[in-house]
Amino acid sequence: MHVVIIGGVALGPKAACRLKRLMPTARVTILDQGSRVSYGGCGIPYFVSGDVADVKELQATSFHMQRDPKFFREAKGVDVLTRKRAERIDREARVVHARDLDSGESMALSYDKLVLATGSRPRKPDFPGVNLKGTFAVSNLEEAEGIRSLIEAGKVGKAVVVGAGFIGLEIAEALADMWGVETTVVEIADQILPGFVSRELAQMAQHHMQEKGVTFRLSATVKGFAGDTGVERVLLDGEELVADLVILSVGVIPNSELARDAGLEVSPRGGIVVDTYLRTSDPDIYAGGNCVQVTNLVTGQPGYYPLGSLANRQGRVIGTNLAGGATEFLGAVGSFAVKLFEISVAGAGLCPEAAQQAGLDAVHSHVVQSDRAHFFPENELMHLEMVVEKSGPQKGRVLGVQGLCAKGDGLVGRVGAVAAVLGNHPHVSVIGNLEYPYSPPFSSAMDIVNTAANAAENILEGRCAAMTISEFERLWNDPSRDFRVLDCRGNANAQPFLEKHPEVWMNIPQDELGARLDEVPRDKPLVLVCNAGGRSYESQITLKEAGITDSLNLQGGVAAIRKSGVEEV
Amino acid sequence: MHVVIIGGVALGPKAACRLKRLMPTARVTILDQGSRVSYGGCGIPYFVSGDVADVKELQATSFHMQRDPKFFREAKGVDVLTRKRAERIDREARVVHARDLDSGESMALSYDKLVLATGSRPRKPDFPGVNLKGTFAVSNLEEAEGIRSLIEAGKVGKAVVVGAGFIGLEIAEALADMWGVETTVVEIADQILPGFVSRELAQMAQHHMQEKGVTFRLSATVKGFAGDTGVERVLLDGEELVADLVILSVGVIPNSELARDAGLEVSPRGGIVVDTYLRTSDPDIYAGGNCVQVTNLVTGQPGYYPLGSLANRQGRVIGTNLAGGATEFLGAVGSFAVKLFEISVAGAGLCPEAAQQAGLDAVHSHVVQSDRAHFFPENELMHLEMVVEKSGPQKGRVLGVQGLCAKGDGLVGRVGAVAAVLGNHPHVSVIGNLEYPYSPPFSSAMDIVNTAANAAENILEGRCAAMTISEFERLWNDPSRDFRVLDCRGNANAQPFLEKHPEVWMNIPQDELGARLDEVPRDKPLVLVCNAGGRSYESQITLKEAGITDSLNLQGGVAAIRKSGVEEV
Repeated sequence: MHVVIIGGVALGPKAACRLKRLMPTARVTILDQGSRVSYGGCGIPYFVSGDVADVKELQATSFHMQRDPKFFREAKGVDVLTRKRAERIDREARVVHARDLDSGESMALSYDKLVLATGSRPRKPDFPGVNLKGTFAVSNLEEAEGIRSLIEAGKVGKAVVVGAGFIGLEIAEALADMWGVETTVVEIADQILPGFVSRELAQMAQHHMQEKGVTFRLSATVKGFAGDTGVERVLLDGEELVADLVILSVGVIPNSELARDAGLEVSPRGGIVVDTYLRTSDPDIYAGGNCVQVTNLVTGQPGYYPLGSLANRQGRVIGTNLAGGATEFLGAVGSFAVKLFEISVAGAGLCPEAAQQAGLDAVHSHVVQSDRAHFFPENELMHLEMVVEKSGPQKGRVLGVQGLCAKGDGLVGRVGAVAAVLGNHPHVSVIGNLEYPYSPPFSSAMDIVNTAANAAENILEGRCAAMTISEFERLWNDPSRDFRVLDCRGNANAQPFLEKHPEVWMNIPQDELGARLDEVPRDKPLVLVCNAGGRSYESQITLKEAGITDSLNLQGGVAAIRKSGVEEV
Repeated sequence: MHVVIIGGVALGPKAACRLKRLMPTARVTILDQGSRVSYGGCGIPYFVSGDVADVKELQATSFHMQRDPKFFREAKGVDVLTRKRAERIDREARVVHARDLDSGESMALSYDKLVLATGSRPRKPDFPGVNLKGTFAVSNLEEAEGIRSLIEAGKVGKAVVVGAGFIGLEIAEALADMWGVETTVVEIADQILPGFVSRELAQMAQHHMQEKGVTFRLSATVKGFAGDTGVERVLLDGEELVADLVILSVGVIPNSELARDAGLEVSPRGGIVVDTYLRTSDPDIYAGGNCVQVTNLVTGQPGYYPLGSLANRQGRVIGTNLAGGATEFLGAVGSFAVKLFEISVAGAGLCPEAAQQAGLDAVHSHVVQSDRAHFFPENELMHLEMVVEKSGPQKGRVLGVQGLCAKGDGLVGRVGAVAAVLGNHPHVSVIGNLEYPYSPPFSSAMDIVNTAANAAENILEGRCAAMTISEFERLWNDPSRDFRVLDCRGNANAQPFLEKHPEVWMNIPQDELGARLDEVPRDKPLVLVCNAGGRSYESQITLKEAGITDSLNLQGGVAAIRKSGVEEV
């Protein structure tokens, strides 16, 4: 059996090696149009930053061998042909027609089974000047080397990153943190990481990056780029930014033309359509990785997840099935993680805005709690949001989880635990009882992942009337100030706010509220705050019992106020 | 409605506060025989060590208020009566008869609903001298204070810890690490953490603790304690250990006598029997925490999990149900984590030995991989084992996961992700595709949690003939040396072993094996090793293709050899 694999970055090599282990007699040929294969593209920001010293490390095994064609031939028994572009698939004849990009010669490879691992390419909008020197995407090692050599040559004082998705933000950190480049991130949406986290978490992450020196332009449209020999200015709507370097990071497009031209089914959004065995509409042709569409396991709708991790796992599934197995890849919940300077953001499933876009009625909690037992030294505050369906037959099911913490490993762990069950459409009470391993150095007896679910359930059931930090910010910055903040903490904590904002801020500690109800104003809407939202929730219950119902409990409390930069007291 | 709760450490206060939030008009009384309530008992080892400076921190909220009776009355609206021992439940009259431990007076509390949160007590075997001064369990804050004041007074040079479970090992670390006490752990089983991790992981953890100065006596039976005014010697079978301090940590016994005497159903092993609503056999009496038995969600059999985390979650369930709700606690998979000096051990579900004891036929993998992208700076090797059912109608389902790593947060995260789905009896391929959030600073594209599942599947399907490090150790220490080790790594890595053990150790790098098959001895059993087990697996496939079938692949490779201290090369 001869298996031809088009594409050699992530899925292709994985499928090839798995197949060879199961069926050593199979002949496997990988074609790739690049000169390098089997590299960790997700590591590019860390090469740009210098955390990863040499680009070769992204192409090395854990035991320091280069994953080059010689390695694949000798260690894996797989033939890798680089600088060969597949141009046409003749499904009738089972032949791939390709071209050598150096010699220009054409070649034909016959196959028994074919794998499309053609990946994706960066979206490159048709801006004027988009091809000016100094303008890069971050899609392959050559571009990564180009960026880093410019920086190392001292030619980059100011940079503009277009797109505040994961890669854009990672590159912004790399430029600003390690090289001291004045970096501005331009984003067309009104928040960073749009579609992945709530505007509240986005604002917290942005605030942190701003503190680290990164500048942001949100709701900003790029009109083009200008410069003489290379890029010098980024033209926005009504503003120009000076830039020696521009990184375009505005999403990726699946490379599905080859499949479409061969008559294979391709989705309207460009992903190759595959079944759960990762077969295309031609059962002799498999596809996976960044060029395919897979099911969003939360919504049940088609989804697109260009992630190296999914590509690797899908590669193994394809390898198994090529060898005669019948293993399935059911879809994805879209888990992610990203490190941004000294904080980490992670999530899985739908954020509140994504739920809304999917037509789902949702509520979400925002809880703040120590990432380990609060009495354990060196604990950090973690922020975690749980998104839950609000109505309909699946009321109460968890749609997603997102969070933010200084130490990322523990955050990724909580998100990973929810991600593991998210495809089963768990009721929020399942997460309330989720058994995250408990020991004071790592977690809390009632862990934040449980608390986030319990808080969401309280909102869902109408027991807690909640306000987000974004809603608070609008109120806070409204000149009318037609509300009162009731601070439910001890007086020492409340004092700085009382002094700075005597006209709106008042203080009754939660444990005194029952006895001091007559001090509570009944003519103004109340915002209840404490450190994180727990005591203010209990205060809200006490107020409700006393017939005072016009109050909202600020989710995340003063921790959220500070983390998002709404008020610096 | 008056709710009486017997026990005020973990579950009792949680149930009380949840009930009060849902039903502020309810009257709630907590009785406890101790003088302190609502403390984090799991923090005791960190108080003994000095990591937690003051015992009050274990009784404080995250906002630094002491959870004493005044706090519960004013902040929570709950009455807490300390130093009151419940002596009898009159179910007919719905009255709890109790006694004031200071005045000796008896009292009667009538209830509408009753909650048993009586917890557990340390098992105290009937050894001669077990009550000598200087002999402690670690069950409450008073004992913790007793231990620490002895140490702080400089009265402890040598300590013996009886029992190598979680608390025993944590206390051993506390004594040896922070106070420099010469500490010996005595364990009746032939491994530490028996029933929780495989003997391979146990040996690695033990080796680490030995390197940190802790001494172990395994398979050792305590005969008694001796001394004049206080404990001076621990008498083992054939040996005496000098000790100024003895910690007894040999398990706990549920406090279910009150329930049994009241005619409530109690299991043969002593746990109060409850349904999924946490009701006892009397529907007006709830019970939870360390005094109840709950379902082991992996085996479906009764289980016993004395963990503060489960007590807290069960407390919330009881609070909800007392308020008229109908929420369930289905059971537990027994997740755990423990920090031991500079390594962490965590797990969930069944370890290989526990699976065997449950009558389940199981295989397990042992993989070693970086805890984040191997090209990311400061990565650490993680060890992870996946236990999978080997035969029968549920062949391939995951029974458990256990592991070990220097950085614990990432390990706990992987275990937490598997724990989240373990009760659903997932097939191993589900974990192979588990969507742990991927980004190079936190995880790998093919993450260790996926690899551990994939490796287990390869063993399960007979594709990999595996050997554990324990099996290797027996072979290695057998004087006959009737085997050969085929080292599949590059020559530079293999050289030190070749020089030290030329009679058994040979080297053919995996990528050269196909061309050098004639060098492979065919008259001896082969043990295949590489860094971690990946290249040796590929070598095994190559050998099998060549008709050489008498080989075993050492799980965890040289990393396991070194970590377990089998060979120091």
